[in-house]
Amino acid sequence: MARLVVIYRNPKDGAAFDKHYFGTHVPLAKKIPGLRKYVVSQGPVATPAGPSEFHLVATLHFDDMMAIQKAFASAVGQAAAADVQTFTTDPPQLLLFDNREV
Amino acid sequence: MARLVVIYRNPKDGAAFDKHYFGTHVPLAKKIPGLRKYVVSQGPVATPAGPSEFHLVATLHFDDMMAIQKAFASAVGQAAAADVQTFTTDPPQLLLFDNREV
Repeated sequence: MARLVVIYRNPKDGAAFDKHYFGTHVPLAKKIPGLRKYVVSQGPVATPAGPSEFHLVATLHFDDMMAIQKAFASAVGQAAAADVQTFTTDPPQLLLFDNREV
Repeated sequence: MARLVVIYRNPKDGAAFDKHYFGTHVPLAKKIPGLRKYVVSQGPVATPAGPSEFHLVATLHFDDMMAIQKAFASAVGQAAAADVQTFTTDPPQLLLFDNREV
């Protein structure tokens, strides 16, 4: 039930971002060991007041925090992290946490 | 498959925050019409480099974006929003988006 949430700010070229993200980054990141589910925002990321400064929110599901740590340490995880730098100028916000339903 | 993600920064008094959040806010927010699932981070919200500036991430699940809009417009939704102001000095970041698995 652990999550890695990756929040990308609006890029200069949204179409180029999406092309790389869905064409290259997702296929690569889906190979990360321990990844159980990979969910991305579809359409605008909004706030209650209107548009946000964010382009995309990705939520990667793992069994637990240890699995996320292992994923970061893996060769594929490091390749995915390196790939992010090829299509962003502004590094995304990454948040890692365990999750529980209330 | 729409999500409302609420990201709270570290409060001055984490124990007081948690007491109000879990004792008052969650029971109130769970009554929001259209809410399908309510998930909160458990333990620290981290970054790959270590501790983050965030205390808690709440993810509220709704059927679609329209359901989130209706939730905000509802009396319970407005009461939940007003309640947030009673236990935060720094307003949380709210992000709303549709979600899909990739």
